[in-house]
Amino acid sequence: MWILAEDAFDPAQQHHKETIFTIGNGYLATRGAFEEGYPNDRRATFIHGVFDDAPIVVTELANAPDWLAMQVLLDGEKFSLATGTILAYRRELDMQNGILRREVRWRSPQGRVVTIRFTRFASLADEHLLALRCEIVPEFDGQIEVRAALNGQTDNEGLLHWRLIEQGQLTDGTVFLRTRTRKSGIEVACAMRLHGDTAQTMFWDVENVPTLQQVYPAYAGQPIVVMKFVGIATSRDGNQPLDIAHHHVQTAHNWESALAAQQQAWAREWERCHVEINGDDEADLAVRFSIFQLLIAAPRHDHRVNIGAKTLSGFGYRGHAFWDTEIFMLPLFIYTSPEIARNLLDYRYVTLPAARAKARAAGYEGAWYAWESADTGEEVTPTWVPDFHDKKKLARVWTGDLAIHISADVAYAVQQYWQATGDNAWYIERGAEIVLDTAKFFAARAEWLAERGCYGYTDVIGPDEYHDHVNNNAYTNLLAQWNIRTGLETLAWLEQHAPQKAAELRQQLDLTPERLQHWQTVAEKMCISLRPNGLIEQFDGFFALKDVNLADYEPRTKSMHEIFGIEGANEYQAIKQPDVLMLQFLLREQYSDSQIRVNYDYYTPRTDHTYGSSLGPPIQAIVACQMGDVAEAYEHFIRAARADLRDVRGNAGDGIHAASAGGVWQAVVFGFGGLRIHPDGTWEVHPRLPSYWRWLTYRFTLRGQTHTVTCYPDGSYTIG
Amino acid sequence: MWILAEDAFDPAQQHHKETIFTIGNGYLATRGAFEEGYPNDRRATFIHGVFDDAPIVVTELANAPDWLAMQVLLDGEKFSLATGTILAYRRELDMQNGILRREVRWRSPQGRVVTIRFTRFASLADEHLLALRCEIVPEFDGQIEVRAALNGQTDNEGLLHWRLIEQGQLTDGTVFLRTRTRKSGIEVACAMRLHGDTAQTMFWDVENVPTLQQVYPAYAGQPIVVMKFVGIATSRDGNQPLDIAHHHVQTAHNWESALAAQQQAWAREWERCHVEINGDDEADLAVRFSIFQLLIAAPRHDHRVNIGAKTLSGFGYRGHAFWDTEIFMLPLFIYTSPEIARNLLDYRYVTLPAARAKARAAGYEGAWYAWESADTGEEVTPTWVPDFHDKKKLARVWTGDLAIHISADVAYAVQQYWQATGDNAWYIERGAEIVLDTAKFFAARAEWLAERGCYGYTDVIGPDEYHDHVNNNAYTNLLAQWNIRTGLETLAWLEQHAPQKAAELRQQLDLTPERLQHWQTVAEKMCISLRPNGLIEQFDGFFALKDVNLADYEPRTKSMHEIFGIEGANEYQAIKQPDVLMLQFLLREQYSDSQIRVNYDYYTPRTDHTYGSSLGPPIQAIVACQMGDVAEAYEHFIRAARADLRDVRGNAGDGIHAASAGGVWQAVVFGFGGLRIHPDGTWEVHPRLPSYWRWLTYRFTLRGQTHTVTCYPDGSYTIG
Repeated sequence: MWILAEDAFDPAQQHHKETIFTIGNGYLATRGAFEEGYPNDRRATFIHGVFDDAPIVVTELANAPDWLAMQVLLDGEKFSLATGTILAYRRELDMQNGILRREVRWRSPQGRVVTIRFTRFASLADEHLLALRCEIVPEFDGQIEVRAALNGQTDNEGLLHWRLIEQGQLTDGTVFLRTRTRKSGIEVACAMRLHGDTAQTMFWDVENVPTLQQVYPAYAGQPIVVMKFVGIATSRDGNQPLDIAHHHVQTAHNWESALAAQQQAWAREWERCHVEINGDDEADLAVRFSIFQLLIAAPRHDHRVNIGAKTLSGFGYRGHAFWDTEIFMLPLFIYTSPEIARNLLDYRYVTLPAARAKARAAGYEGAWYAWESADTGEEVTPTWVPDFHDKKKLARVWTGDLAIHISADVAYAVQQYWQATGDNAWYIERGAEIVLDTAKFFAARAEWLAERGCYGYTDVIGPDEYHDHVNNNAYTNLLAQWNIRTGLETLAWLEQHAPQKAAELRQQLDLTPERLQHWQTVAEKMCISLRPNGLIEQFDGFFALKDVNLADYEPRTKSMHEIFGIEGANEYQAIKQPDVLMLQFLLREQYSDSQIRVNYDYYTPRTDHTYGSSLGPPIQAIVACQMGDVAEAYEHFIRAARADLRDVRGNAGDGIHAASAGGVWQAVVFGFGGLRIHPDGTWEVHPRLPSYWRWLTYRFTLRGQTHTVTCYPDGSYTIG
Repeated sequence: MWILAEDAFDPAQQHHKETIFTIGNGYLATRGAFEEGYPNDRRATFIHGVFDDAPIVVTELANAPDWLAMQVLLDGEKFSLATGTILAYRRELDMQNGILRREVRWRSPQGRVVTIRFTRFASLADEHLLALRCEIVPEFDGQIEVRAALNGQTDNEGLLHWRLIEQGQLTDGTVFLRTRTRKSGIEVACAMRLHGDTAQTMFWDVENVPTLQQVYPAYAGQPIVVMKFVGIATSRDGNQPLDIAHHHVQTAHNWESALAAQQQAWAREWERCHVEINGDDEADLAVRFSIFQLLIAAPRHDHRVNIGAKTLSGFGYRGHAFWDTEIFMLPLFIYTSPEIARNLLDYRYVTLPAARAKARAAGYEGAWYAWESADTGEEVTPTWVPDFHDKKKLARVWTGDLAIHISADVAYAVQQYWQATGDNAWYIERGAEIVLDTAKFFAARAEWLAERGCYGYTDVIGPDEYHDHVNNNAYTNLLAQWNIRTGLETLAWLEQHAPQKAAELRQQLDLTPERLQHWQTVAEKMCISLRPNGLIEQFDGFFALKDVNLADYEPRTKSMHEIFGIEGANEYQAIKQPDVLMLQFLLREQYSDSQIRVNYDYYTPRTDHTYGSSLGPPIQAIVACQMGDVAEAYEHFIRAARADLRDVRGNAGDGIHAASAGGVWQAVVFGFGGLRIHPDGTWEVHPRLPSYWRWLTYRFTLRGQTHTVTCYPDGSYTIG
């Protein structure tokens, strides 16, 4: 299933649909808003790394100049779906080729009928090139006017980030716009050219909206074709972004060749991450959609950026990256496109100085990554946000202060990348330093809890954000333990395989024998609260909290957080997402099936699967598969699969749930597909397919070898 | 001195100059930014009552569509002071006629020379009409292009308040723009027409920036004249604002007649508030400038709006009104234009429901006015603002919670208006209710302080905002006492002169004999901390605070608040503005000259005159005059006079210091001019002029009689 389509336009769903019809090329992405506009649309293009300051929320990706803008007028009547009559409508995202198409047959208020076909793509073959084609077939004789603009007056939900530098028309007819973010001073340059049928063309040099206006004679049944190419570049790409933009738009004089390059680039992309679910079209579409959304958001040539929690597809979380990247999205890249995974991990390497500064400012050694990270890696989690109930009041956000597990999540991804790729060169050069410096942080941050006789972490937030200011969150403690131990192993490995680097890092990070002994002690004596049956307490005192039967609150349309309030949620055992289960999923090798079962049975009914975190369901699905509960696994899986496609949480308009998308791929491959990869690089497959799936095929790459697995509902599988 | 002029353009001062070259007509005001734009200008037009929600700061006047926009191109080269060479420059505000003119002789980068003269005004004769004239005299033969636009993409320091509704060109050639605030849904419609020399005119229908483009042949020495008229109206004015805007622009087909109407309207205005200082041009200009700024901000036909602390001239304080109106600005209007004063007090009458709701929400009866008030009268003081030192942190603002004196300030102004005008009809209909309901609030809010055996107010902020959470602020306690007593007198007066209204209000406000007895008791037993010599303690414990010699901190360029920090300032006797002296100024009849002297001598050296509140210096000047310290009075007066004209506080770019402007007029009339009006309507004059003033003339109206007083440095005076 390559085509995501809609056959009718529903204004009530416009923001949701803008999100899911996003196109992109890893350099930028553009939401699926209409070329001609629609009242209250949230049209947006986000370019990686183009951040600008914003009040309260610190920094955000600035909504770039609008390259789509195109108006069509029929004898002076403006084409708009907000007026006239829609006679036919179809919008479809061709994921195979990264192309968005829309075809509308429309009757104007005064009765002129026209069919308009828009096609757009952001070139994956040339990341500085954007292409838009408009075919107009009038059913009347008269005049067709087309206005194509670059619009520099875009805003982020009312906040304006731009100041015009310069605009105009070059001697070759190219219209350009140069604009700069107000605070961060990043320039974006756009260069526009029109191709297609000849027409009288005027340049309307209106400030911030340079426009080319064309007038065509219209004859019934005779198509008019206008092609708009836009070159785009920023001052992050070079000192003369306009020259870059101009160069790229000059090379694109032919729709067919640009399109062919796009198709080839996408074919290569899909080849690497092939998945097919036969027998379940919805699931098949959903997994391809999830992969597509991550592919268009993944930076290929810029290691100073990361993928935000909402990719580049919406205003939610303002382009900030979370642990969502490392824990949820990265496995797709690690096992299908390792060079993208490496690029994303490089971002954590170049932001190490900011992570060290964050730790230092809090009084610790080592690297404490920002909970929310943008261009510099500094902490950009807002400290205050408007309250749920009274938007005039502010609620304190604690994750930036307390969610220390992020450092271990990053280290975990580094280790996973290394194990999957065997990329020793990168690991020696960059990865090892991340693992060692995060280990150093966790050893420094650990507190000796004398009354319990163990080391632990007080006043933290774990993955389950319904509970803040907790002590000894099992996930945090045990990932920290893993991180410290892995640090020690890393150093030992370096001694053997790269002794010079080992010496360098010992020196640079001051890894004295005493310090390493302390690491050892902390890891050995890490607090963990375990019942005799293997049940892990999520944090100190969790089992003493009021128990809750979430079924009592059904049907509901909001999270338990909203129902209980921020303070109230702390008093109950209701959790936002798997926390202990997440721990067991990541450190799979440490837990027996029966211990996982005990925790699964306890925590599953206490988890807010429906309106808690969108990060929960895919992980829940994987663990359910491992427990053999395929029907229940499917329920969680399909909830994740629908997060954006059906907007089941009502917030898809803010952008793609990127962690969920990554989780969907993981649920298919590691859950139903039963792939289990061991730290030593060996792997096994235990398929657990829903009975009505005819087969599941997936492809992955491990240590340079690509494997294609096809599994069947009876548990059998083939490897190609 | 009618002309405020500059002969050179200094980009470093552009925002300051935009503020002081503001024009307006009481319906709207437009900052003095250039028609053609300039990098980083803060061009803005603010229309009374057009508020829209804003994050954190609650609500603000939305920067209206830009009606000024006009580009001039010389053979394609854009006229801009940011390029080319300025050969001559003059900008002048003609305050007598409410007109801003600019003349620039400029050489383009490619060497074309032109003289351009811009003239603009907002018609005082027709508040929906705006006029701009552009005369271009080329010194070359070639082509002149003019582009005149309505720009709907204006922002408030980066925040966008508008969504386009519709734009286009009407059959008579009028170009229009309809736009609506995003949250409050107020529509603003603009209608533009061009007059002048005939030219080929094109309509560039670019979204949000409809533009008329004209091309003229240029002949050296031959002037080209373009006149742009803009009609403007909002949905607050009627259901069809575009019809209103269109109607008003249609009536303006002739520059000369529009200008003549403007000049007549301004002549009438100045007639009423004539002031002249002969022998001190700076002071003479400053007092006219102060009056001008208040006149252009004073609503004439809309009693649902008030004058913000920065008038309509800048983004500071977001159009919110404070006690600045009643205590600082209103006397000018009460004694020169009582119908404007009444209109402003009507705003407090129509916002009584919000004041009652505020009191009720806090658990009190009566009317507690908002410290910051916008369209509805609800409290719009932000509760948090970015911290001085770390803009990422937030500091709590307490005035909205604690500055209860605002209610007495409003009642005081009501009473002052009534005494000055004898407007019994208004007082019976509206004023009395304000006085009674604020009295009710103060009686309810008063606490019996058993250990001291008196009533008082704990946890308040007085006029001096360096100290918050104080108890028994003398200003607050004694204004409350005055308010309660005046309430009782008001009721007695109503019994006699409007018994039916008295009965109505007794009923409506539940003014039982027991309640009135309580009022009496509270007023009689109001706490006041007084030393035997008559020195009043500003609040409980003030004299025990660390004393401070402000001279030790000179020279300084920031306030003592910034130097000490928010917490630190609470520990010192340094005060932001007169507080006890303010009390004695308002309740002048209750204090002997010698008691004022004692307090003056104590508090004056402890007041941050330079960087404290801009509200302080004019009041300090008046009290100094009363104490006979004319030289010191002049020092304070000229500091107030220069607040905007010379930007002595460095923040004039945010808008006019309106309270200071009102205070400048008061300092001239009540200070140097020595006018003292008694509650019974009698008045006396005790001039105290600086020796180098030749004479001071001022005019005021009392109970329908206009008096012109001319005073001389020797203390003599004549009354005309």
